[in-house]
Order: sequence, then structure tokens, then C-alpha cells
Amino acid sequence: MSKVRPISGFPEWLPSERIIEQHFLDVIRETFELHGFASIQTRAVEPIERLSSQGEDTDKEIYAVSRLAAGSEASSRDPKLGLHFDLTVPFARYVLENAGKLTFPFRRYQIQPVWRGERPQDGRYREFTQCDIDIVDAGELAPQYEAELPLVIADAFSKLPIGPFRIQVNNRKIPEGFYLGIGLTDVQAMLRIVDKLDKIGPDAVRDLMVAAGATPEQAAAALALAQINAPDESFVEQVLALGVQHETLTRGLAELSAVIRVGAEHASGLMVADLKVARGLDYYTGTVYETQLIGFESYGSICSGGRYDALASDGRTTYPGVGISIGLSRLLAKIMPTLAATRSTPSCVLVALADESNRGQGMGVASALRRRGIACEVSPVAAKFGKQIMFAQRRSIPFVWFPGSGEQGSDSVKDIRSGAQAVASPSSWMPPADDLRPRVIA
Amino acid sequence: MSKVRPISGFPEWLPSERIIEQHFLDVIRETFELHGFASIQTRAVEPIERLSSQGEDTDKEIYAVSRLAAGSEASSRDPKLGLHFDLTVPFARYVLENAGKLTFPFRRYQIQPVWRGERPQDGRYREFTQCDIDIVDAGELAPQYEAELPLVIADAFSKLPIGPFRIQVNNRKIPEGFYLGIGLTDVQAMLRIVDKLDKIGPDAVRDLMVAAGATPEQAAAALALAQINAPDESFVEQVLALGVQHETLTRGLAELSAVIRVGAEHASGLMVADLKVARGLDYYTGTVYETQLIGFESYGSICSGGRYDALASDGRTTYPGVGISIGLSRLLAKIMPTLAATRSTPSCVLVALADESNRGQGMGVASALRRRGIACEVSPVAAKFGKQIMFAQRRSIPFVWFPGSGEQGSDSVKDIRSGAQAVASPSSWMPPADDLRPRVIA
Repeated sequence: MSKVRPISGFPEWLPSERIIEQHFLDVIRETFELHGFASIQTRAVEPIERLSSQGEDTDKEIYAVSRLAAGSEASSRDPKLGLHFDLTVPFARYVLENAGKLTFPFRRYQIQPVWRGERPQDGRYREFTQCDIDIVDAGELAPQYEAELPLVIADAFSKLPIGPFRIQVNNRKIPEGFYLGIGLTDVQAMLRIVDKLDKIGPDAVRDLMVAAGATPEQAAAALALAQINAPDESFVEQVLALGVQHETLTRGLAELSAVIRVGAEHASGLMVADLKVARGLDYYTGTVYETQLIGFESYGSICSGGRYDALASDGRTTYPGVGISIGLSRLLAKIMPTLAATRSTPSCVLVALADESNRGQGMGVASALRRRGIACEVSPVAAKFGKQIMFAQRRSIPFVWFPGSGEQGSDSVKDIRSGAQAVASPSSWMPPADDLRPRVIA
Repeated sequence: MSKVRPISGFPEWLPSERIIEQHFLDVIRETFELHGFASIQTRAVEPIERLSSQGEDTDKEIYAVSRLAAGSEASSRDPKLGLHFDLTVPFARYVLENAGKLTFPFRRYQIQPVWRGERPQDGRYREFTQCDIDIVDAGELAPQYEAELPLVIADAFSKLPIGPFRIQVNNRKIPEGFYLGIGLTDVQAMLRIVDKLDKIGPDAVRDLMVAAGATPEQAAAALALAQINAPDESFVEQVLALGVQHETLTRGLAELSAVIRVGAEHASGLMVADLKVARGLDYYTGTVYETQLIGFESYGSICSGGRYDALASDGRTTYPGVGISIGLSRLLAKIMPTLAATRSTPSCVLVALADESNRGQGMGVASALRRRGIACEVSPVAAKFGKQIMFAQRRSIPFVWFPGSGEQGSDSVKDIRSGAQAVASPSSWMPPADDLRPRVIA
């Protein structure tokens, strides 16, 4: 047997880090549910044919899955399977498969791991957890949802210790109409180049555009567009000042204005119009989102998404949608070193034992505490009390309970941080609210 | 693109079913934490070498994972990977990998999907969720944990709408010592045959034992042992009456007595000694558990585990452990048809709109309700109120909110089940506790 070792790109947390991750997951879930999103989970696998037909260059990212001992048993009827690389493609499939049993517009959230066979690097993993919300409708999708989704994210992030953040919003129709208006027809190619602006800088973007067939004037205009951003609707005037006219551009400006206007009203200071945001995936057709941690802009987006019009279609009905996805693993990779949990176990109380023959009594105390929502465990051995207190200390369990230790056989409980000890009954004692569960501190 | 269709063995729930699954997950997690178990999660993949060295016949079950486009890039240093088929083998590896950073005895729970390439059948899936608790220690493991784990399960199951259940406990040392005492030396082979008793019946078990080399007398004795069960320590006398003596048998009887005695004291009527319980996996060395739903005994176990002494060892230190695992997908497959959720969305309130121009006001009401923990959503369109009420009805959202509809511009809220409507303020109104979240009803 080879020695155990981590596998690059497949991170795992220690118990105290997992408590922090769970806090994030709980806040995100709670927020999504407060906003009326229903949970679903999809299987980890999809037919490879479905995975590889979506998005740009996804072939290289897919993990194929096959039965190790399939051999001659393998049925040719079974589709070849791969692990999903996002939650949007499986969700679109789920909507098509269950359309008759869902009520539209359908608001769902989905929190699951996804897998990509990319080279692992800073904050980029091969296995990572995504937290998605999407709203899909049958036929037509109301435009207000494009403004609503980033507000849900702003609500969740405002409750989490992640520091200041900025949700950047663009609309694909703006660069598309603008490019067409100046005679650049390969919109996808230009968007992919603009997407690199933060990484490679304006000069390199201009060069790449020219290399891809733009004239220097077209490249300069496209770059000027990409460099526009504003916390309010003033971006519209800046775009109009570039003097380009196209029907698609006009529509895009109106749509983005509506999103930014609602954002300014309901999440003041958290959303900006940022016209360089492009998103790599082909399936977006309107509003697109990215999210930066302020001060860590070069780290890239920790929450992204957009509107898609044709991802789910069964030939008769099309289900347009808009979605946004928190890259939880990516976010935590950046934030985890700044956070700590108050303890590495849920236990708030260790029930000490004077003698092994008291174990039954100790278990009774523990049951009574648990019935009232207090997490606890009974000491593993009836060692000297000093040793049992050390057992609690090593785990930062704040309280040690001594059954029958007081006068007339009453119990007592000791706060091992202050040393204060007091008579207590397992049917009425409560710890301070801050001690009840492990907490996350910055 | 092929038509969307389910993939056999990879089940998915509809939103209302997922609410039921979430309720089970929440109760199980809460119970595990109340008993002081810390959460961890492990990556989905392990080196195939590690997976295939554990347990019986696991080769045929493993799903191999490989990068679709790896080709010539594939590094020979990378181990070949497979999806984990349980949570015990990854946990043992996690303990070895992080031993220096964990505090022992280490209590952990782990709730994740696992994958097995078996043929799907009633309640047996290729992707399914397991909920595990384990306690491991370095060097020696205290015996009381073997009694503690089924009590945690009994606590969790007692809070869930699963009907009556029975946790069956045995100790591997009993059949092992007994078989050796009557001269049957291939203990593993005999255990595997006994494991089929519920499925194939006593006559077939006897025949298989004889075919595997037992004399008719040995087979009869082994079968008599397997047919012993009792809710209390009386099983010991029944075993002794068979007249077999062996040191290992004596130890096993003492260990199982201790577990059953504690079970009778703290979970009266929920645990039985059942000497036919064998468990397929080779790594168990002492206590073993299975759990039946009473009335559905032939469905098989929905929660199983046992003690293992040598699963995790780095050559210097061995980490013995005991664990038990709820087969949540398997349990839900049986129970789901008997349950319903009160609604298919978390939303308790739909905020209606008299006019599209009131959307901002409606969003403000929704924010105020959410700040007080009331899940809600704003109507997708400012249609006639009757239509908006129908929108809520289709989702079983119990309340519709009408901003500014009352005298002097006050809001009102309507219970659409009773039709009762009353003036209400978003900063003080609360729904009845039963309506706040979707509930599970039997």
C-alpha cells in the first residue's frame, strides 16, 4: 500500500476548518431559502455527450467515469458518463426531465461539489463546491430576475465574514451590439480576449484583438468600452459618448440600466456596472455577473453567472433562465486563513466521571442536556478530574460537568476558562448563547 | 443531443421530496452534533489501490475516474483514481494523513454520496448518500463506544418518521470462537454464508455450509447459533446451552453482553442481540450492527457498521475504531412514499403587486419579512390578484401579502387556505410556527 498523501487539487478541511465551511454553507442555504429558492440535488454524473456540448473548451475539463470491472459486461446502450463540471448544465437537464412536475417560474438552489480536470492553482481546484441559484421559466423569463439574483448574493455575503466585495454586472448585448456597430463580427472571439483584461492588461488585449483581425481603431474602441464602469446609470452616457449605434447595444444598455438601478436602490454600494465582464461560457445571452473581493481583485471572481436563453430546450418549449453561483471552495481558500472556529467539536460540555461505575449516570446527564439542545459527550475514562479537564481543554470544550459532586448529591458545572464552578441541574442549566455552538471569529 | 432520461441507479428527488430528504439530513446532523461528533468531508476520489485493498469483492464495485482528455499528458506519478464506495475507507485514510492534527479519541460524522458500480435494484443504487459516525483512538479504543454508537442512531431515528425499527447487534468474536470451538476454521467463508440467512433461509444455509466443507453436525450447530436472538442478556445462556467452549467465544459473549446491557438501560426495546448478523466487509473485528425497519425485515439493513481494529495503521501507530452508517438513500427509498411535505418551496409568503410600479415597495416588504426569518418571494407579475393567489396556491404557499391595501395605506395579509385577511406590518407579523417552514407529514 502506498503512503497516504494529499491528491493535488482535491482539498480537504480539518475539523475546525470544516466548522467554518459549515457556517458559510448554513448562511448561504438559509439566505437562499429566505428568498424562496427550493433545494434540489442532481446526480454527480451526466452523459459525456451532454457535458461536452456545453460551453467553451470543456472537453479538456471533464472527468470520465467508468466501472473498473465493466469489461465485456459493458452495455453499449449505457451512455458514457462524466462528472459534472458545473451545476448549470445538470440543472438544465433536470428541468427538461421534470418539466411536467415543476411549477414555473421555478426558483431552485443547489449546493454540491463539481469536478474539473484542470491544472490546480491558487484557488482553482479539481474538486470544489458551488452554491447556485437559478430562476427558469417556460417560454419567457421576466426581466426583473436579472436584478434580483445579485441582491440575493449581496444579502448572503453581507452576513458572512468575507470583507468588502463588489458585484460587477454587464450585459452581453452591450459588447455584442457595440462590436457589430463598429464592424467586428466575431463577437465570441473578441469577448474571450476582453475577458483577459484584468490578467494581461489593456496593451496585450489590444494586440490580441488586432491579431484576431480587428483594425487598430476597432481594437481601441472595443478597449474603451471595456474600461467603462460606474456604480450607477452614468455608464450609459459614457458608452453613448463613444458614438457607436446598434439596436442590440441600445437594448443591452436599457437592460443593464434596469439592473443597476434596482441594485442601487436595494443594495447600495454593492453593485457596479463593469463593461469588461464577459464570462467564458458561451451559453450566456444577456446579463452577466462576476464578484470581486475588494483588495483581492487579481484573485478573480468568487461568484459568477448570467442569463441564458437556450440552455434548456426540448424542441417544443424553451426554458430561459438566469443563475449565479458562489464558488465556495474558491472563496474559502482565500478567506480561511483570516478566520478561526471557537472550538473544533460541537461539544459544549464534557460530562466528567468520578468512577467508571458512574458512566450510566453520566450518560443520563448527557441525554438530559441534549434534549435541551446542548451538545455534549461523556468523558472517555474516569481518570483524575484534572486529566478530564485537560481532555476538554485540548478541544476547547468550554464546560465540564460533575454529576453528583455538590452538596446533597447535586451536580455542578465548571467553566474551565474562568475556573468558575456552580451548582447546576441538567434539566435547567443553559450555557451563554455564545458558547452553545462553535462560532466563527475573524 | 440524445433525449434526456434518468440513468439507472442514479436517483434524483423532486423539490418536495428533497424537502423531506433535507429534514432527515437536518435531524441526523443535529443529533450527531448533540452527541459531540465533528463534521468532516473527504474528497470523492481515492487511489484505486487503496479502495480495492479493502473489503470483500470490492473490485467489481469501483468506478474509475480519469481525465477525458488526459492522453499523453497523463503523468505516471499520478495514482489511478476511483470514486469512494463507502465513507469508512476514506475516513481511515484521513485519520492517517492528519493524525498529528487531530485529538484522540476522535469523534467524527460524515454525510456524503458514495458510488458503487453494482446492478441497481430495490433500494440499491449506484450513487447514494451515507451518514456515518465513527470514533477512533490511537493505540487502544475504549469498549464503551461500541455501546454508545447504536444509542446515537436510536436517538436520531426516534426523531424521524420512519416507524418502528430494531438495531441488531452481534460480535464477530462469538461466531469466530464458536466455529473454532467446533473445528470450523474458515471463519470468513462461514460468516459470508450465514450473512445470507434472511435471504435464502436455514436449509439453504446448511447446504452451503456443508458444500463449503462443514460436517452436517457442524453446520447444524453453526445454524443454531445464528438463530439465537434476544432483547436482553439471555442470549448468553442460549449460546452456552449449545455446549461449545472457546476463549474467543467467551470474550465475544462478554463484549456483546455489555453492549446489550447499556442498550436496554438507555434505549429500551430498540436494540437486540442477533447472532446471525455478520456484515460482508472483512475489516470488522468485534461488535457489528444492522438495523431493520419492523415489518420490512426482508428489505435488509438501513443502518450498519461495526468495530474495526486494523483499518488505519501507518506502521507505527494503529487507530482502532467503531463506526455506524445510515444508508439514507436506501432508507428514503422505502419511506418516501409514506411521507409528504406541506409545500414544495421554502416560501411562506407571496408578496402580491397591484402594479408593476410597486415592485420596489414589494421588495422592501420582502426584505423586512426575511430579516425576521420569514421566507418569501415577490410575485413575478402584477397580474390580477386572483391570478397571483393562484400562483401561491399552486406551490402551497400559505400566505399572500398585499402592500398598502388596507385603510390609510396599511398592508394586509391573507391566509389563502381559510381566506382570512388581516391588517399586518412586515416588521411585526409572524405566521403560525407550523407554517414558517415546510414540514414533513406522514
